[in-house]
Amino acid sequence: MTNLVIFYYLKKYFFIFINFAPQFKIMNEKRTEVASLGEFGLIRQLTNQIELRQPSTIKGIGDDAAIISLADNKCMVVSTDMLTEGIHFDLMYVPLKHLGYKSVVVNVSDIYAMNAIPTQITVSIAISNRFSVEALEELYAGINAACKEYNVDLVGGDTTSSLKGLVISITAIGEVQKEKITYRNTAKIGDLICCTGDLGAAYLGLQILEREKQLYLSDPNTKPDLENQQYLIGRQLKPEARKDFIEMFEKNKLIPTSMIDISDGLASELHHICSQSGVGAIVEESGVPIHPDAELMAIKFNLDPITCALNGGEDYELLFTIDPSDTEKIKYLPDVYIMGEIVAASEGIQLHTKGGNIHKILAQGWVHF
Amino acid sequence: MTNLVIFYYLKKYFFIFINFAPQFKIMNEKRTEVASLGEFGLIRQLTNQIELRQPSTIKGIGDDAAIISLADNKCMVVSTDMLTEGIHFDLMYVPLKHLGYKSVVVNVSDIYAMNAIPTQITVSIAISNRFSVEALEELYAGINAACKEYNVDLVGGDTTSSLKGLVISITAIGEVQKEKITYRNTAKIGDLICCTGDLGAAYLGLQILEREKQLYLSDPNTKPDLENQQYLIGRQLKPEARKDFIEMFEKNKLIPTSMIDISDGLASELHHICSQSGVGAIVEESGVPIHPDAELMAIKFNLDPITCALNGGEDYELLFTIDPSDTEKIKYLPDVYIMGEIVAASEGIQLHTKGGNIHKILAQGWVHF
Repeated sequence: MTNLVIFYYLKKYFFIFINFAPQFKIMNEKRTEVASLGEFGLIRQLTNQIELRQPSTIKGIGDDAAIISLADNKCMVVSTDMLTEGIHFDLMYVPLKHLGYKSVVVNVSDIYAMNAIPTQITVSIAISNRFSVEALEELYAGINAACKEYNVDLVGGDTTSSLKGLVISITAIGEVQKEKITYRNTAKIGDLICCTGDLGAAYLGLQILEREKQLYLSDPNTKPDLENQQYLIGRQLKPEARKDFIEMFEKNKLIPTSMIDISDGLASELHHICSQSGVGAIVEESGVPIHPDAELMAIKFNLDPITCALNGGEDYELLFTIDPSDTEKIKYLPDVYIMGEIVAASEGIQLHTKGGNIHKILAQGWVHF
Repeated sequence: MTNLVIFYYLKKYFFIFINFAPQFKIMNEKRTEVASLGEFGLIRQLTNQIELRQPSTIKGIGDDAAIISLADNKCMVVSTDMLTEGIHFDLMYVPLKHLGYKSVVVNVSDIYAMNAIPTQITVSIAISNRFSVEALEELYAGINAACKEYNVDLVGGDTTSSLKGLVISITAIGEVQKEKITYRNTAKIGDLICCTGDLGAAYLGLQILEREKQLYLSDPNTKPDLENQQYLIGRQLKPEARKDFIEMFEKNKLIPTSMIDISDGLASELHHICSQSGVGAIVEESGVPIHPDAELMAIKFNLDPITCALNGGEDYELLFTIDPSDTEKIKYLPDVYIMGEIVAASEGIQLHTKGGNIHKILAQGWVHF
């Protein structure tokens, strides 16, 4: 250790000693609230200093996953997600097994969104002492079930304690041929906007569970009213990632011009694709797939079904764009919907309603902060 | 979606509805405390059901990092660590910049322990609303400084909120030629036990900071007594991973027969190597490197210096074994110490004290739970 380093330490110590107090108090002199930037603004603020030094790093922050080049034109894909109790899940109604399953799904979904195949995951958890070994076994039973379903290996992790609540952090690794990678920033004017499955159901499932929770809390003897809500609650508690579409793209030799998974809602994801690709979009309301159960439940909750589809989130469907010449390749695929077209950036991001009106689509997404 | 799946959902719903209450309460009928298993027992319990399906997975859970095979005899190395406020760090005296730096060091150290070179990291954080943007910028300044020092790229992550405190989860990725990987389970009888740097100083640095914190809390006008403690506090607040040794091994064409990084203390790491390799070990107390400052401070705290070295932890030095025929290759390296020998498992893990006594070394390590 050189003198220089010791001097550095020394300075740092003085810094600490003068302010022998929590760092976040020191910062109060100039304090910008995280909420004022929002999640994406905060990420930009924190990562704008980042330099990339490794020649193997093809894509860093800014897409569903990072891309690292390997030999033979292959690439490795890496994505990570953190779920915290009270923010992302409520153990009042989320069974731990489902939570484990969903935690893996959320991550492999990001790998699929790059048109890649997930291969391995690591799982780190922090737990408070209210969790028993049996409770954690439930959580891992769900994680293992998802590993089996998506054919990924759980290869590592960390297990530690927290002062409060459960935190789950999963990193997923996948692989893809370089020429097949689907980024967010490569949509082009004239491309068709497509999406898999249907949207808004997971959000409505959450509304049902929240309603039942409130009823239960006000009267624990109340009988939950969940009949005929299997589809909506299933979409919330046990979502699936669209592995089948990555396989179908491969089989039909289709490479989308851009792709993203729908975790924060159609509106937010569309904004990511458009702003990163430097384009605009027109979405036809009639082209946005909404399940009949979601439509009915939205009305029951006094919500607009299209708003649930645009801003609901947690659908884990794929939003992608294709060159119009590839239309034939998806036309006969089940469960895929063409909902609009990529246009010039100057046109913005618009919704053409069934009634013939034009609305601007705002990027609402989920607000954690 | 098939009927079968809907039936599965239905069953699951009944399970939830009957028990519309937090899952951990349900589990109370049979409740095993996590503390009764300890961290390593818990990991075994949770991971014993894991099946590996991917042919590329060479090593899953059980070493410093997982190993995934790539083309050209290369391997990818993956490791992950989670740090939680109040458990791993105390923001009362840990500056956020140092915390960011250390979080990266902890992870790249695991990559080096496989004799690999770290290349990329992902960083996920969960924060409560007491953290300002400026505070997070400090944290990321430390993360970026470590990325520069260790030549790794920050390629991804997640930023979310927590109900309480700060959680940092980092995953590090590295690469290594297959034949150079150093596992924990490959030490053999007759090998020499070596370690880099010195041990116990980080633990004593922590004791000093804890003492000063208590004094500060009882009287905020007290002036901290930290003069001449730069070395010990520096080892705690700004540890470095032994990148230099991986480079020296390469230069001297030395491949240790086994290796692990010292995060939980020499005793715990030695137990990992011995139990996984099916061997025992004899350590000479006189061979365990302890910095003079650590020796003095241990005595001041009424602690045995060798106990601090054995059980202190957070040194982030490398513990490795070499074939005796390689002795010449490390003999003239700076900052490396031969402290003992691998023996038959039947001999256990022993410490030969300076006074000529023989003690059993117990695997104390850090107890989170």
